[in-house]
Amino acid sequence: MNLEVLRAGRLLSASVALCLTFSVPVLAEAPASEWKVTDFKLDNGMEVVVIPDHRAPIVTHMVWYKAGSADEPPGKSGIAHFFEHLMFKGTKTHKAGEFDAKVSEIGGEQNAFTSYDYTAYFQTVAPDVLQTMMTYEADRMRNLILTDDVIGPERDVVLEERRMRIEGSPDALLDEEVNATLYQNQPYRIPVIGWMHEMEKLNRVDATAFYDAFYAPNNAVLVVAGDVEPEQVKKLAEETYGKVPRGPDLPPRIRPSEPEQNTKRTVVMSDPRVSVPSFSKSWVVPSYRTAKDGEAEALDLLSEILGGGMRSRLYQELVVKNGLASSAGAYFQGSMLDDTSFTVYGAPLGENKIDEVEEAVDAQLARIVKDGVTDDELQRAKDRFVRSMIFARDNQSGMARIYGSALSTGSTVEDVEKWPDRIQAVTADQVKAVAARYLNPARSVAGYLMPAQPVEN
Amino acid sequence: MNLEVLRAGRLLSASVALCLTFSVPVLAEAPASEWKVTDFKLDNGMEVVVIPDHRAPIVTHMVWYKAGSADEPPGKSGIAHFFEHLMFKGTKTHKAGEFDAKVSEIGGEQNAFTSYDYTAYFQTVAPDVLQTMMTYEADRMRNLILTDDVIGPERDVVLEERRMRIEGSPDALLDEEVNATLYQNQPYRIPVIGWMHEMEKLNRVDATAFYDAFYAPNNAVLVVAGDVEPEQVKKLAEETYGKVPRGPDLPPRIRPSEPEQNTKRTVVMSDPRVSVPSFSKSWVVPSYRTAKDGEAEALDLLSEILGGGMRSRLYQELVVKNGLASSAGAYFQGSMLDDTSFTVYGAPLGENKIDEVEEAVDAQLARIVKDGVTDDELQRAKDRFVRSMIFARDNQSGMARIYGSALSTGSTVEDVEKWPDRIQAVTADQVKAVAARYLNPARSVAGYLMPAQPVEN
Repeated sequence: MNLEVLRAGRLLSASVALCLTFSVPVLAEAPASEWKVTDFKLDNGMEVVVIPDHRAPIVTHMVWYKAGSADEPPGKSGIAHFFEHLMFKGTKTHKAGEFDAKVSEIGGEQNAFTSYDYTAYFQTVAPDVLQTMMTYEADRMRNLILTDDVIGPERDVVLEERRMRIEGSPDALLDEEVNATLYQNQPYRIPVIGWMHEMEKLNRVDATAFYDAFYAPNNAVLVVAGDVEPEQVKKLAEETYGKVPRGPDLPPRIRPSEPEQNTKRTVVMSDPRVSVPSFSKSWVVPSYRTAKDGEAEALDLLSEILGGGMRSRLYQELVVKNGLASSAGAYFQGSMLDDTSFTVYGAPLGENKIDEVEEAVDAQLARIVKDGVTDDELQRAKDRFVRSMIFARDNQSGMARIYGSALSTGSTVEDVEKWPDRIQAVTADQVKAVAARYLNPARSVAGYLMPAQPVEN
Repeated sequence: MNLEVLRAGRLLSASVALCLTFSVPVLAEAPASEWKVTDFKLDNGMEVVVIPDHRAPIVTHMVWYKAGSADEPPGKSGIAHFFEHLMFKGTKTHKAGEFDAKVSEIGGEQNAFTSYDYTAYFQTVAPDVLQTMMTYEADRMRNLILTDDVIGPERDVVLEERRMRIEGSPDALLDEEVNATLYQNQPYRIPVIGWMHEMEKLNRVDATAFYDAFYAPNNAVLVVAGDVEPEQVKKLAEETYGKVPRGPDLPPRIRPSEPEQNTKRTVVMSDPRVSVPSFSKSWVVPSYRTAKDGEAEALDLLSEILGGGMRSRLYQELVVKNGLASSAGAYFQGSMLDDTSFTVYGAPLGENKIDEVEEAVDAQLARIVKDGVTDDELQRAKDRFVRSMIFARDNQSGMARIYGSALSTGSTVEDVEKWPDRIQAVTADQVKAVAARYLNPARSVAGYLMPAQPVEN
């Protein structure tokens, strides 16, 4: 189980904005009783969000902690993710493995993931064992036993996880250095899994300090989606999480932010394991939390129009029409606590050169900066979001994730619910404006993944 | 006065290794009574170094604090340098400007500088006022009055200093982003003067916290060079600094260190104010404190042979013989607390292209990696160091700086004194080995300063 957690976290952080995009109109289309989200706080400060969904006797139970890799102390990279692993160890009440065995026994599933701004734990189970899940989850919020015997072997597990996922993968290594070159001051420059040389030194003192600093009900959000009613969840939550004492007040999550970028930067990874070259180009841009005046919504729509799928300009022009690229696209990671990134990417098809692909991507971007997007194109982008929601309806845990990630990164339930109105209000001029304001190729950070043998281009 | 401090700090951090190189053989050549360095500690933990120099009735009095920009809390960049400015304000005992007036009145000089690993304050005066200087300096170690009235106007001064020195200078802006791209984890990535957006928010709380954390006798080194005797300095120091209470013990200066670099990175600044393009290429390498087995000494000699002046390979080949470059050289910043940088640089002459200059620099480096340096060349590099010491003899404050910077970055008096033996022991093979181990062009960080109009190359 633990070997999947980082992958889940990484996918999530790239896909949250997309989930958000897909989900919200469901709220408008579904019957009022369905999807009627309720939120409240327990006396100890724990936030609770309930998302009723009575189509099947299933419930998704998630606890989100407002603590991710970007909250780690300097020099302790990887402790957030390492600690996520340790949460599956024994507590004062339950020995290691007992919680997992219980979930398996009742035919449920559980997992966890760590990202920059949060760490989350979840189970998908039948509603009649929700109380049991809450009891176990509330127990490990404060009662973990953190001894050297527990820490040492699990550190070997996360080190091996890094070896497999990062050290063995040229594109993962390149991603790390591109991020650290893009963010020169914000903690997003540091990989979620941690730098190897710092992970090797993580110990019991670090783990205990992280636990005591961040694992408390007043730093957590409980999200329950599924075949439940708010009153029932409230009663169960009070009986379980409500018994956990409030922790010390946490300081505001104010992190170093980026200075102005005045240069064009490149990062090149040449590796014999690479057969096809590829590139990406990124910019630091506002997130939903840090943006003003609809700019994050405009960036979301820009990423969709420019490179959000097979109907996007990049895919149509470079892959379909020109046969220049085997892939090309764009993405925007909107749901981050601090300023985030907007990325375009591409890879040449066949004998085509990577420089030509980059020039063609730049040209598509320049076209939008100069001429904007059409109203028709903008409406079709919105339509594509709506069609995609058919999938979101069937994804109860996706709904839980939308609210959990929103509440863990400074948004409110109301922000999520009003989001479709704000997206609908975006104009073509706004999309053009954010492209011009933020996506200047002369102030970008490009990453190139290259075969070790020099490529002529 | 304060407008000179950063410049002093910057020059120092680039030149300390050079000073070190020049100075130490003086110790061997001078009469035993001269330059016989004495060091001891006061009861409150303050280190004292006395360097007698009786050639003239002058004394250099310096206090070094083991606190520089790399010791700043995250998000508070610039506080170390800002605080250096605040040290010239009023104390409980002396109003603002009184200390300066006193120094001027007696025909002395005073200044201060801030670097990554330390902040230092110094006066050059007649020996009979040494006690007065110590009294003032000991007073401001703990008695500064830090009110908003004092902080606000001085913050405007450092902001203006940044505008003049950095914002107005394309090469300074490029340097900042190259550093932040070279160091992806160590705090040396952050400029000593601070990022503008963080400097703007520095306040009384930040200043007080920095003062209380770092300004105490047990975190300071007193260096007195000149027409004094150790016993006399000891007595005066006990009467002045000795009265300042010891502060809380400071934790070890353990900072985040660099992960392995797997990429080649570039940073390009294009600016209309640039007329001649230039480039630099840097690597993270061990410093004197972090290196093993004479590697720092070998890096010092490598920088001298490769690019330390007009006799160096780079200058002779690129500037003198080929007429390709108007400048070319190399430097190594050896005296840093943590891993440091080694840099090569060059600029094309006339119509020559920057790419050709870079290729020629790379070729000279490759030659050393492949064939090493000759024993004769190595000996001549050492000889050049020795000849340069003629200048060092006349520089009393230079001697004080050598010991102050050494003791502020983890070295001892003994390290300084044994350094010439270690330099003499370096072999040509060792120079070749460090070039091969650390200066791989495929794992470098290059900065390009370019005219805003595209240059054909």
